[in-house]
Amino acid sequence: MKRFEFKIKRSYLVRLDYGKDLVDQLSSFLEKEGVQTAYVSGIGAVKNAEIGYYDQKKKEYVKRRVEEELEILSLSGNVSLKDGRPYPHIHVVLGKDGNVYAGHLFSAEVFACEIFLLVLDDEAPVRDFDSLTGLFLWS
Amino acid sequence: MKRFEFKIKRSYLVRLDYGKDLVDQLSSFLEKEGVQTAYVSGIGAVKNAEIGYYDQKKKEYVKRRVEEELEILSLSGNVSLKDGRPYPHIHVVLGKDGNVYAGHLFSAEVFACEIFLLVLDDEAPVRDFDSLTGLFLWS
Amino acid sequence: MKRFEFKIKRSYLVRLDYGKDLVDQLSSFLEKEGVQTAYVSGIGAVKNAEIGYYDQKKKEYVKRRVEEELEILSLSGNVSLKDGRPYPHIHVVLGKDGNVYAGHLFSAEVFACEIFLLVLDDEAPVRDFDSLTGLFLWS
Repeated sequence: MKRFEFKIKRSYLVRLDYGKDLVDQLSSFLEKEGVQTAYVSGIGAVKNAEIGYYDQKKKEYVKRRVEEELEILSLSGNVSLKDGRPYPHIHVVLGKDGNVYAGHLFSAEVFACEIFLLVLDDEAPVRDFDSLTGLFLWS
Repeated sequence: MKRFEFKIKRSYLVRLDYGKDLVDQLSSFLEKEGVQTAYVSGIGAVKNAEIGYYDQKKKEYVKRRVEEELEILSLSGNVSLKDGRPYPHIHVVLGKDGNVYAGHLFSAEVFACEIFLLVLDDEAPVRDFDSLTGLFLWS
Repeated sequence: MKRFEFKIKRSYLVRLDYGKDLVDQLSSFLEKEGVQTAYVSGIGAVKNAEIGYYDQKKKEYVKRRVEEELEILSLSGNVSLKDGRPYPHIHVVLGKDGNVYAGHLFSAEVFACEIFLLVLDDEAPVRDFDSLTGLFLWS
């Protein structure tokens, strides 16, 4: 188990722009504001999302593109450093009514999206390749 | 993109009352405690929930009432000002086992519900009508 | 309605160990770090999860074991005191693609899991038996 302790510095509510990519906008915001470590949560609506799940045996992501217009029912994750840059690791539950698509979020076109970012104040955890899982985990 | 920055003032855990409406109780709490801006999360169980998704083309909510007894698997969102009053914008994933119903939360009768509120300390974002989406977004 | 107010003391990002139980690891961490009250969120991937929903009429949990390898799409809840020890109350949405299993989390074998803990600083809420629901709620 690896633990990283933080003070709470500041937080943001961010309204993302209509028609642009959710992950790109979030990454740009992090770079611009100098946020290296954070807790992330959000709600809203998107279309044309690309999500995926990790095949634990093959050690690769299986991606899927969902062309529908979908609510962001849950969006949560964290920000830490990967290759020297702030990296948002985000999982989502998208859908509407009784129909959901969920996984690791690769991209999605924003209809409306409200992001909450809680900035964590101390040295950022760094993601390195973990041979056991094939993932980039905090080392 | 619109950004709002906050200090962290205080937080609450709230146990909502059995048999009363979740959204009404949350709104009353916000008014009583003078909370205008917050991050919201919660878990618990409800029945008789009214949820909905936003039809992005017709620009209107499609509502659905679910009479079943359901777990609150995920509840998240934010509080900001709408018409001069604290407005909770909440999305939920409700369900049990492999069966879920999810969307924007309009109402639900509480069986048991534990809410976490992180109060965000600065001028509250204000929701105004956005003609592009038909939604009330932070302006 | 019962309200508990807190200052924000500190927070953690925790990378749980591969192959060990998620809930056991989280409970051990709480004990070791002296955390009695917290907001909890997380993402990752697991296998062999045991989840359940609460039958509101029979007042008992209906448990189910899911042997599949699954993403943690949403994990949220809180920590408070039960029987004098820190008790994590956690709900999850597990799954991959359009297939989800969700409920109260009893156990799950970690493939990879990143937990965010926001420590809440004041006297911890205490769970006692509530005869109306049959649950252990904050008294």
